[in-house]
Amino acid sequence: MKKFTVAVHGLGNIGRRAVEAALAAPDCECLGVIRRRESLGTSGDALRGLPEFADIDGLTAAKGRPDVVILCGPSRGIPTTAVDFLGKGFSTVDSFDIHSDIPTEVPLLHKAAVAGKAVSITAAGWDPGTDSAVRALFEAMVPVGTTFTNFGRGRSMGHSVAARAIRGVADAVSITIPVGGGRHSRLVYVLLENGETLDAVRQRIQADAYFAHDPLEVRECKTALELASVADQSHGLLMERTGASGMTDNQILSFDMRINNPALTAQILLSCARAATRMDAPGCYTLIDIPPVKLLPGERMDHIARLV
Amino acid sequence: MKKFTVAVHGLGNIGRRAVEAALAAPDCECLGVIRRRESLGTSGDALRGLPEFADIDGLTAAKGRPDVVILCGPSRGIPTTAVDFLGKGFSTVDSFDIHSDIPTEVPLLHKAAVAGKAVSITAAGWDPGTDSAVRALFEAMVPVGTTFTNFGRGRSMGHSVAARAIRGVADAVSITIPVGGGRHSRLVYVLLENGETLDAVRQRIQADAYFAHDPLEVRECKTALELASVADQSHGLLMERTGASGMTDNQILSFDMRINNPALTAQILLSCARAATRMDAPGCYTLIDIPPVKLLPGERMDHIARLV
Repeated sequence: MKKFTVAVHGLGNIGRRAVEAALAAPDCECLGVIRRRESLGTSGDALRGLPEFADIDGLTAAKGRPDVVILCGPSRGIPTTAVDFLGKGFSTVDSFDIHSDIPTEVPLLHKAAVAGKAVSITAAGWDPGTDSAVRALFEAMVPVGTTFTNFGRGRSMGHSVAARAIRGVADAVSITIPVGGGRHSRLVYVLLENGETLDAVRQRIQADAYFAHDPLEVRECKTALELASVADQSHGLLMERTGASGMTDNQILSFDMRINNPALTAQILLSCARAATRMDAPGCYTLIDIPPVKLLPGERMDHIARLV
Repeated sequence: MKKFTVAVHGLGNIGRRAVEAALAAPDCECLGVIRRRESLGTSGDALRGLPEFADIDGLTAAKGRPDVVILCGPSRGIPTTAVDFLGKGFSTVDSFDIHSDIPTEVPLLHKAAVAGKAVSITAAGWDPGTDSAVRALFEAMVPVGTTFTNFGRGRSMGHSVAARAIRGVADAVSITIPVGGGRHSRLVYVLLENGETLDAVRQRIQADAYFAHDPLEVRECKTALELASVADQSHGLLMERTGASGMTDNQILSFDMRINNPALTAQILLSCARAATRMDAPGCYTLIDIPPVKLLPGERMDHIARLV
């Protein structure tokens, strides 16, 4: 089987799982990991024997150009990083997840991808990402109706970071709990800074824009160990759509998943890296723009025989 | 909004619902229905005010060429009918559902579509169809694992037809009941011919290739009215996948739906008719070959802002 090649950019929660997904894929060769220079040599087992480099030039000089760079850094930095790689002619995939910025991010990356004759697949995690594709399929099946996307129970990275930034909070873990109808409550575990009271901190969290609109419960952890004991990577989703196909109502669809969050995100990135090598034209794509068969290893006609 | 035009070919269970789906779509104009000459004038309300024609030439002469012909006849005849339309340069969609024939049917239709500079979207119901797309997405998310597709509870058209063909059976309705692990039992309601015994008929049904491998129960209906009272169009599906993303096991996905069967099939045909007008190149496609966004009315960037 012909293999496509990738480089993994960043070695946090997602990057470590992206390395695993690349090594587990039958048709992928991982050329190495790109990390900040100050992090080199500190990653221990997470590299799983792969070489690490401070930049793409070092990786390319040692291993050749990868077909795709899998961007695993924080969302905020993704557009800049992606434009940089695309401009140099490297295809990229990323799990950029700031929903409100995606409509401006896609044209930006599209322009860079076309200029670099490369492919970008962005917002390629599970939400945004595969959930977006399922939402589109659900609407194609049931065009008139309502979709509720219920997240959790699971840790929200974004809300945890927001809680950690609140005055008086030494560390925090925010759990998203679905309460039905696409609405959520937040359960925030906090480690307080010296001299702070739980009551004052709860009020500050409730006032923060990230938390202001949802029911909130804040619980105090007395030690870092106690806080670590609620920071697992399990997550879940229940997507529900009810509506009409043609003139027939009461069509009921649902999609449920219970998953390890970074492992699923990284796997979707890897599947999209494969798709990036197969798109017909340079440009920026999201999961709703990709024929599902391009995500899978092997030959289209074999999948038609097996899945259709 | 610019409208695409369709003609509906056949006015059975699916064709009637295809007319409804076309009339309900905001971006579709249905030019009319093509039926066998002997059926003209017999359809009553099912036409919903649309004109009917004995062939495509009549429809085209009166209303112009449709962008897509929605094929709603029986599966057995689909390949021949599709090749005929494609050869004349008409794009087609169909819900051909003989799974084992799809690998040979797709290249056949592809050749005809390329020759006619048209697009065919085949196997475009819910299984094969949208289920195929979901199976592909599930494998992209969880590449190593097992998928079980559990159908029902609902009436199987194929099994009902097979039961009706058994000696001693005047009429029959076969219900598919999921028993877990992607396996099914069959509950067959029969109206016996004069002088037949339930026991003898049960043995013949059990010996038929359609029924030989599944648990079977046969119940006798005493009247046509009684048989009609179990012939509703409700159906269901539970697709389950458990497996590994990268090197992380216990990733659990499921897709459940409870639907009116022909209404869903017809809606998917209509959504695929829309996609057929947007594919980049002539040829034959299945649901796993289609970017989900092409199935939806309206503009891609609006869907990216809303669904991604």
